[in-house]
Amino acid sequence: MALISPSRRLRRTAFSEGVEAAGVKAYTVYNHMLLPTVFRSVEEDYHHLKSAVQVWDVSVERQVELRGPDAGRLMQMLTPRDLRGMLPGMCYYVPIVDETGGMLNDPVALKLSDERYWISIADSDLLFWVKGLAYGLHLDVLVDEPDVSPLAVQGPRADDLMERIFGSSVRDLRFFRYGYFDFQGRDLIVARSGYSKQGGFEIYVEDSAIGMPLWNALFEAGKDLDVHAGCPNLIERIEGGLLSYGNDMTRENTPHECGLGRFCSTQTAIGCVGRDALLRVAKEGPVQQIRAISIDGPKIGGSDRSWPVTTEKGKRIGKITSAAWSPDYETNVAIGMVRMTHWDEGDRITVETTDGPREATVHEQFWI
Amino acid sequence: MALISPSRRLRRTAFSEGVEAAGVKAYTVYNHMLLPTVFRSVEEDYHHLKSAVQVWDVSVERQVELRGPDAGRLMQMLTPRDLRGMLPGMCYYVPIVDETGGMLNDPVALKLSDERYWISIADSDLLFWVKGLAYGLHLDVLVDEPDVSPLAVQGPRADDLMERIFGSSVRDLRFFRYGYFDFQGRDLIVARSGYSKQGGFEIYVEDSAIGMPLWNALFEAGKDLDVHAGCPNLIERIEGGLLSYGNDMTRENTPHECGLGRFCSTQTAIGCVGRDALLRVAKEGPVQQIRAISIDGPKIGGSDRSWPVTTEKGKRIGKITSAAWSPDYETNVAIGMVRMTHWDEGDRITVETTDGPREATVHEQFWI
Repeated sequence: MALISPSRRLRRTAFSEGVEAAGVKAYTVYNHMLLPTVFRSVEEDYHHLKSAVQVWDVSVERQVELRGPDAGRLMQMLTPRDLRGMLPGMCYYVPIVDETGGMLNDPVALKLSDERYWISIADSDLLFWVKGLAYGLHLDVLVDEPDVSPLAVQGPRADDLMERIFGSSVRDLRFFRYGYFDFQGRDLIVARSGYSKQGGFEIYVEDSAIGMPLWNALFEAGKDLDVHAGCPNLIERIEGGLLSYGNDMTRENTPHECGLGRFCSTQTAIGCVGRDALLRVAKEGPVQQIRAISIDGPKIGGSDRSWPVTTEKGKRIGKITSAAWSPDYETNVAIGMVRMTHWDEGDRITVETTDGPREATVHEQFWI
Repeated sequence: MALISPSRRLRRTAFSEGVEAAGVKAYTVYNHMLLPTVFRSVEEDYHHLKSAVQVWDVSVERQVELRGPDAGRLMQMLTPRDLRGMLPGMCYYVPIVDETGGMLNDPVALKLSDERYWISIADSDLLFWVKGLAYGLHLDVLVDEPDVSPLAVQGPRADDLMERIFGSSVRDLRFFRYGYFDFQGRDLIVARSGYSKQGGFEIYVEDSAIGMPLWNALFEAGKDLDVHAGCPNLIERIEGGLLSYGNDMTRENTPHECGLGRFCSTQTAIGCVGRDALLRVAKEGPVQQIRAISIDGPKIGGSDRSWPVTTEKGKRIGKITSAAWSPDYETNVAIGMVRMTHWDEGDRITVETTDGPREATVHEQFWI
């Protein structure tokens, strides 16, 4: 792996002290901020995530706050998902598209009230798009990045650990719902959500000053639960089909290509900037789509580039955008975008990896 | 230094092969892309930059292209700098501000024609702000990121090297002007500009496919000039007072605080989104401003956090945002934001570095 030079531009987080003390081994950069990628090893972290409980510094999920009389209207302009049923206490996964229907981000939005939303973003400066729209359309809304740092608690023992800090009622939270829970006299938003398929929570830590007190409290309380520092795990997220903006999709792609058509109510959702562009896609369907792909042969490692996907005759029909060896499924699991001629279950394709070609199989379901 | 995990999200560039072959030692991430930071050592690179010629992969300076009848109008909305004198062939350094006068980026803009501009950006997704404005204001303009990868040739021998590739007329380019020069049958934009004070050029490589051919041609032609791969150099840029967006300034700061008041024609420049907010700042002046600062004592290293600046009595009056040991000036050179009570030449301040307090001196001029 390459080295990364220290820079103030690559921001530390409210939990960096804890992350360093826990022996972080590598990072990525996400929203101009450091995101841990490895603690013990990607495989050790993977097994532990699936069997115990981890605390993740996901401060990089910066919030875009919309506040004011036009907040709801603006929120609906951002996404093709129909938000009319969204109430305070709910989290919605919302593809964000531009006027051509191209993906700008794929965040989770929280409705705090009719006039206030948080958008917990993937890796792009969504703030700039939202501010530009609000200004250009003369909307009565304030748009800003507040001092909120999400801390995730993920894994099968997440409920047990969280109960010890926030009380037993935290167990009652339903998936993609949030509530307010006390920590040292502060009301923090806690949601049942997170970037893994192992279950767990995200705590929206408002005010960096309580970041380390909360981090320390979780580790102190979870000793007998084998709590460890962790981070979004490459293998586990591919197995679960959790997409990564910038890897698996970019501004080039529509939500439909990303398999997110179920979040697009282009017939009803009114006011979304990209609706007109997406009407045609919704009607005709995309010509390429994201698929789960298993790649034959020995273990493959992480890569800094996408790999072309071809037919056996060498015709280009897509690309692999994420891939890793899965110890549990004993195959290389991957996410890729493939053309409709080869996106059915069992279709055989060729992947041009950095180390040469590999045969592979297309699947309609991820490993969940 | 920490390790960075390989990821497709941290994009490779049109010159990555050459950068790797040249023995890059570390990177930073900038506009979702890899930017080299060290080849031999920061100090060796520094001495070489000041004495010979380097080729820099600055693909991370992504372009935001504005094209259409409203391109000029939109360009003027983005910046408080008066663009009425800007003609095709000119490059302008343009602070970009939001409606509150806060800095969103500090790029160099190129006017290609009355209906076409490129904005060569610093580290933020300016594309999103520009697209949001264009959509919200119903402007007749296309906004996109084209396949253009700048390659810089910097150092006192830059003219000699460039002449061998582009012919002697490249020497006639004036500072911040550009022309079209042939390379293997393509007309490339070449500007006399770059993120160093050593002089040189930036080649706007349109079409990634000719990236490595151009890279190789420059190294082949420059052997006897001691050409080396290089990159923006932390020490040299601080000496020269070249600001770094995300380090020395953020959305919190006005151009006036950044010492960029001379680029703000708030009295005349018409249509800039931030004009109203900046009118007051222009009249009253900022209460804090960026200054050159020399920090006493032994050599200090790069840092991942800003350092508080205080009076001798401990009152907080600013922060250091960039710092490095300068071999040529034999002092620690730094860039910081300080309040008006302590921004005069010779004012003494205290810097709370990660390794303890240091005395320091404020300067009105950088080391140029």
